[in-house]
Amino acid sequence: MVDRVKTGIAELDQMLCGGFVAGDSVIVAGGAGTGKTTLALQYLVNGATQFGEKGIFVTFEQMPNQLYRDAKNFGWDLKRLEQENKLRLICTSPELLLESHGIAHLLDEPIRQVKPRRIVIDSLSNLAMYLGEKEVRKEGYRLINYFKTRQMSSLCTWELPEIISQNLLITDVGLSFVVDCIILLRLVEIESQMHKALVVLKLRGSDHDKALREFKITSQGITVAQPFTGFMHVITGIPRREPNQQNDNNKAS
Amino acid sequence: MVDRVKTGIAELDQMLCGGFVAGDSVIVAGGAGTGKTTLALQYLVNGATQFGEKGIFVTFEQMPNQLYRDAKNFGWDLKRLEQENKLRLICTSPELLLESHGIAHLLDEPIRQVKPRRIVIDSLSNLAMYLGEKEVRKEGYRLINYFKTRQMSSLCTWELPEIISQNLLITDVGLSFVVDCIILLRLVEIESQMHKALVVLKLRGSDHDKALREFKITSQGITVAQPFTGFMHVITGIPRREPNQQNDNNKAS
Amino acid sequence: MVDRVKTGIAELDQMLCGGFVAGDSVIVAGGAGTGKTTLALQYLVNGATQFGEKGIFVTFEQMPNQLYRDAKNFGWDLKRLEQENKLRLICTSPELLLESHGIAHLLDEPIRQVKPRRIVIDSLSNLAMYLGEKEVRKEGYRLINYFKTRQMSSLCTWELPEIISQNLLITDVGLSFVVDCIILLRLVEIESQMHKALVVLKLRGSDHDKALREFKITSQGITVAQPFTGFMHVITGIPRREPNQQNDNNKAS
Amino acid sequence: MVDRVKTGIAELDQMLCGGFVAGDSVIVAGGAGTGKTTLALQYLVNGATQFGEKGIFVTFEQMPNQLYRDAKNFGWDLKRLEQENKLRLICTSPELLLESHGIAHLLDEPIRQVKPRRIVIDSLSNLAMYLGEKEVRKEGYRLINYFKTRQMSSLCTWELPEIISQNLLITDVGLSFVVDCIILLRLVEIESQMHKALVVLKLRGSDHDKALREFKITSQGITVAQPFTGFMHVITGIPRREPNQQNDNNKAS
Amino acid sequence: MVDRVKTGIAELDQMLCGGFVAGDSVIVAGGAGTGKTTLALQYLVNGATQFGEKGIFVTFEQMPNQLYRDAKNFGWDLKRLEQENKLRLICTSPELLLESHGIAHLLDEPIRQVKPRRIVIDSLSNLAMYLGEKEVRKEGYRLINYFKTRQMSSLCTWELPEIISQNLLITDVGLSFVVDCIILLRLVEIESQMHKALVVLKLRGSDHDKALREFKITSQGITVAQPFTGFMHVITGIPRREPNQQNDNNKAS
Amino acid sequence: MVDRVKTGIAELDQMLCGGFVAGDSVIVAGGAGTGKTTLALQYLVNGATQFGEKGIFVTFEQMPNQLYRDAKNFGWDLKRLEQENKLRLICTSPELLLESHGIAHLLDEPIRQVKPRRIVIDSLSNLAMYLGEKEVRKEGYRLINYFKTRQMSSLCTWELPEIISQNLLITDVGLSFVVDCIILLRLVEIESQMHKALVVLKLRGSDHDKALREFKITSQGITVAQPFTGFMHVITGIPRREPNQQNDNNKAS
Repeated sequence: MVDRVKTGIAELDQMLCGGFVAGDSVIVAGGAGTGKTTLALQYLVNGATQFGEKGIFVTFEQMPNQLYRDAKNFGWDLKRLEQENKLRLICTSPELLLESHGIAHLLDEPIRQVKPRRIVIDSLSNLAMYLGEKEVRKEGYRLINYFKTRQMSSLCTWELPEIISQNLLITDVGLSFVVDCIILLRLVEIESQMHKALVVLKLRGSDHDKALREFKITSQGITVAQPFTGFMHVITGIPRREPNQQNDNNKAS
Repeated sequence: MVDRVKTGIAELDQMLCGGFVAGDSVIVAGGAGTGKTTLALQYLVNGATQFGEKGIFVTFEQMPNQLYRDAKNFGWDLKRLEQENKLRLICTSPELLLESHGIAHLLDEPIRQVKPRRIVIDSLSNLAMYLGEKEVRKEGYRLINYFKTRQMSSLCTWELPEIISQNLLITDVGLSFVVDCIILLRLVEIESQMHKALVVLKLRGSDHDKALREFKITSQGITVAQPFTGFMHVITGIPRREPNQQNDNNKAS
Repeated sequence: MVDRVKTGIAELDQMLCGGFVAGDSVIVAGGAGTGKTTLALQYLVNGATQFGEKGIFVTFEQMPNQLYRDAKNFGWDLKRLEQENKLRLICTSPELLLESHGIAHLLDEPIRQVKPRRIVIDSLSNLAMYLGEKEVRKEGYRLINYFKTRQMSSLCTWELPEIISQNLLITDVGLSFVVDCIILLRLVEIESQMHKALVVLKLRGSDHDKALREFKITSQGITVAQPFTGFMHVITGIPRREPNQQNDNNKAS
Repeated sequence: MVDRVKTGIAELDQMLCGGFVAGDSVIVAGGAGTGKTTLALQYLVNGATQFGEKGIFVTFEQMPNQLYRDAKNFGWDLKRLEQENKLRLICTSPELLLESHGIAHLLDEPIRQVKPRRIVIDSLSNLAMYLGEKEVRKEGYRLINYFKTRQMSSLCTWELPEIISQNLLITDVGLSFVVDCIILLRLVEIESQMHKALVVLKLRGSDHDKALREFKITSQGITVAQPFTGFMHVITGIPRREPNQQNDNNKAS
Repeated sequence: MVDRVKTGIAELDQMLCGGFVAGDSVIVAGGAGTGKTTLALQYLVNGATQFGEKGIFVTFEQMPNQLYRDAKNFGWDLKRLEQENKLRLICTSPELLLESHGIAHLLDEPIRQVKPRRIVIDSLSNLAMYLGEKEVRKEGYRLINYFKTRQMSSLCTWELPEIISQNLLITDVGLSFVVDCIILLRLVEIESQMHKALVVLKLRGSDHDKALREFKITSQGITVAQPFTGFMHVITGIPRREPNQQNDNNKAS
Repeated sequence: MVDRVKTGIAELDQMLCGGFVAGDSVIVAGGAGTGKTTLALQYLVNGATQFGEKGIFVTFEQMPNQLYRDAKNFGWDLKRLEQENKLRLICTSPELLLESHGIAHLLDEPIRQVKPRRIVIDSLSNLAMYLGEKEVRKEGYRLINYFKTRQMSSLCTWELPEIISQNLLITDVGLSFVVDCIILLRLVEIESQMHKALVVLKLRGSDHDKALREFKITSQGITVAQPFTGFMHVITGIPRREPNQQNDNNKAS
């Protein structure tokens, strides 16, 4: 059996049949406001505090202070984790990452110091804005292998531009075919409320839950709830009620 | 607990669980005629008159006289607020802002004079028309950080080109991932009337109301009302009645 | 209270809570055959004959003789209005307007002679075909301000290429954010007949009727009728009957 | 009252309140197989044989022999009409038309000889393939005026690339705003049969029938029948049955 | 009456009111797997064996051996037909065809030898991939006329990239306006099975069946069956059941 | 009868009326997470272990160790098969493949050593990212013929960027017209669960099952189940329940 890397989000680990596969690359794709950064931080914090796996968080557009503050809302003390050498925040820019002649020059040293088992790139699409289409896939592939050869499980966030859409593509640069696992986060309008949906679209070398499940961002971070019921087209963000559901209501009345 | 920056629009502050987060960057995105400028002005006026927070309003295409006049319709005396040094209107052009070698050269002086806690850029998309795709995100990020490092809460308006749409993206340049808060304003056709909808799509580091709520522009400015009920696909601008609603009607008859 | 510029189309003036705002810029957007030119002419003719406001009509593609003839169908004697110096037709080309080093060189003289309070550009999108995307917005903005500083109320027509559409944008160059008022004209298929719909999408600094109302082009020009009832998605041009309507029919049977 | 140019298709002339307006420019737009060329020929043949108006038919891609043959199927003897100097076929190429330094060099002579009151360009979109977007509108406008100044009524066909579509635009180059009259021909799928629909979308300076009416191509040419009933979205080519219609069926059963 | 070129597919010849028109150009358009090549071969084989009309089959991407083999599945012995000089397969490449300074250099000799009445180009879109948009239409037109002047009936296949679509265009290069006849083949999903639909969209100078009819590829080649019934939107490939049909079911239960 | 190449997936071989046709080229197209690589490996493993046909697996982005590991989850010991010279994994890069002056330089030697009857390219779209549109089709065609002339049955995977879509095209470069067989894999949302659908869209020279059938990835690899029932639009990925189904439920209640 393969080693599993638990996210520490109980229901998500269940959906993943135990967690991500150790050493694998994960993409968490979602539109603005879906909680990608929260999921990524929670994955690192839980790794550091519950599973003894150190982590590195690379961000291109957030300031450390804001990350500290936002994390505190979930009860996560990133500063302390950094002081205990269980976590390292790297706030850089895509230009710097690219200018440094490969990732090694920028990440080698922190990796040597922290010896992380988990790494987060928030976001990979940010990096993609500085590269041509071919380059993104090549660079993404190189990055993923760089992490694999160092036995690190990587989680990259990917920004979906569309809030709702009848046609859905994860990336337009083929990166979803390179990674081992894809988690899609989605805003979903139901009864004039924006709900959040999570679905595991891909998990190489393992079975996984296929449901579109609602999740919430609580004061403890992400909590995954039950699958949506009675709706079709949830993945578009603008679902319709199943006619069956409608009939049941008729019955009920 | 984080400091909150109240908009002074009671229901919106409730939706935001107390207001924007102090120092955060907000995007108010909406199509033509949705009330973006009204919301932005109201945010500044209420800040200056109710919460003791001075403000700067930067606009690229409106004339001061028109702003004075339009504001007066809501009972807001911008001229007096300027004379009391509680508000400053800056009517400039994107070219001027960009030519001035960074924003500092243009905003530094007013900021030193006014000492604002709130700033509005109306609109950021206007600036975007003069920049390439990569540049917009970089420049937007730089602008947002410039405000953050000066402890100013920023609110930028963003123009959505589409009045109605089956696919909705906030920006095509990734700015919605940079900002801390996204408020979406939307025209919505219901019973052959154009209604206005407001939804908080993102609020980093805080819970928030997820409802699509109707709002109106009254003689006192923006007033947020109840969530839409009995409709699906409100966010597209062309909602459909929920079949349940239809069934209820059947029951009622 | 702001001064109002009446169109003389009674129901439209009601929808506008009295008329356009004096000195404001208006866009009348619509597809081919929706009556943009008729509305624009009627606005000028009524101004000249009922409200003592002289007008200038700038067109890029119509010949004076055709305008005279078409206007006569509505009982409007443009030639006489010209002779009485109440109206001036300027039939030019976009190239000429652009080559003349700014609008002043072309319009200054007529404006000095006529002293108009109203001006129509039919169409602004025609001008846009000769400019790049950035230039259109800049040029449109300059044009609008040129009129404002001369206390003229301007009405520009804008050609929507799409007859019907699930996604609707007024302009793809951001001009709808520059203007003070947007009126949308639309062909709407109902019971295999093409109807005409009019809706005020934006009116800066004033309340306005939000309804999608049917209008007709009669021998007296444009007449605005009641809002559509029993339909959704009217704004797309291909509405659907409301299920309520359907239920009512069921009840009725 | 304006002079009317009868097509000789009785129901179409009724829809046009008597016919096209003399000297006006008409676009007949439609997808492949909708009968544009048939309508255009019928317009010329009827003009020559019933209304004493001579005509010129300019085509870019059909051979005279094929036109003779196809016309014969409708009982139209084009060769005889040519011999009687009532009709002239000009089979040329867009390149030739464009190389000839303006249309005059190519059409002046035939026009002087035939003295036509009617002219057909089949198709204008063909010409458009050889010109840039700006050029098409300018060239189309020049062509239309060339005909107007010679008191000729012009009818241009325009090829719509889409057979069915949820979004419909007549031309993407703004030509539908230049012309005085637009007739749209459309294939419409009803009960797994392709029907043909005709609608007058625009008729400057005149009222007109607004219905989407079925038409057929018979051995006498085009015959216009009744409006479609019981359907919505006919203009998309893939209509849906009106729910009322459905209810009526329920009642009937 | 015009001469008819029978396909030998009885129902299709009926739909065409006797067959294609002699000397005309036909486009058979369809997505992958719809049977374009089968129809084209059947047309040639039946011509050679039943109607005494020799044929040439030009292909750009299939090997003779595969064609022999695939044809054998339908009981067609292409090799024997070639030996009897009733059929000629030309397996070439678009480059070769284009380099040969016009088609004459490549096809003149085989045409002189075989004296064909029928010719197939499988596929014309293949050729189109090597030409610009303007060139395709011009080259296609030249090719079609080359065949016409030699009294050959031509049938070109055209590859539609989309399997299903809400918007359907035959070609994006205007070729459907050049040809005399268009047959559309379509995959259609009904009850989770991919069916095949055939419809004659255009037949210049002749009436034709307007139905969307199901067809199958059997061991004898293509067999056309009845029109689809009880469905709308068949042409999109994803039809919906007619509400009438639904009501009938209700009645039936 | 043609020779058949069994996949060893019993139901799929049934759908293919016995298997792929020997020597043919197959495309397995699908979005991320649909199981393309699993199907491709299973095809090679079954060939080697059940049908005595050796195979080569060419991949551009997966590492051998990961393939070994993922295959082991299905009980497939790739390493042993390699040692027994029944299988060869070639992990290369598109650049290397292209730089090697034709495929021969890279594949000739392994083919001589292994003498494979089956070859997999995972994925062909990967190769396509390094070539222009014309080049892809030409190169793909050359590759396919290279395999055919060596009597190898080839299976190429192709990555569909869209997870769900109302318009579906297999490739935008015309490759689906070059290959002999197309299998489409699709994620399908039903009752808030992502199901997997498989359909054979094309099989040159043979009949085949036309159903959209559900399949699962189990610990033994891919297992094909029954066709979906009671749904329409399965191929879009967001099906709707058939109204009949709804009626049946009504009956049932």
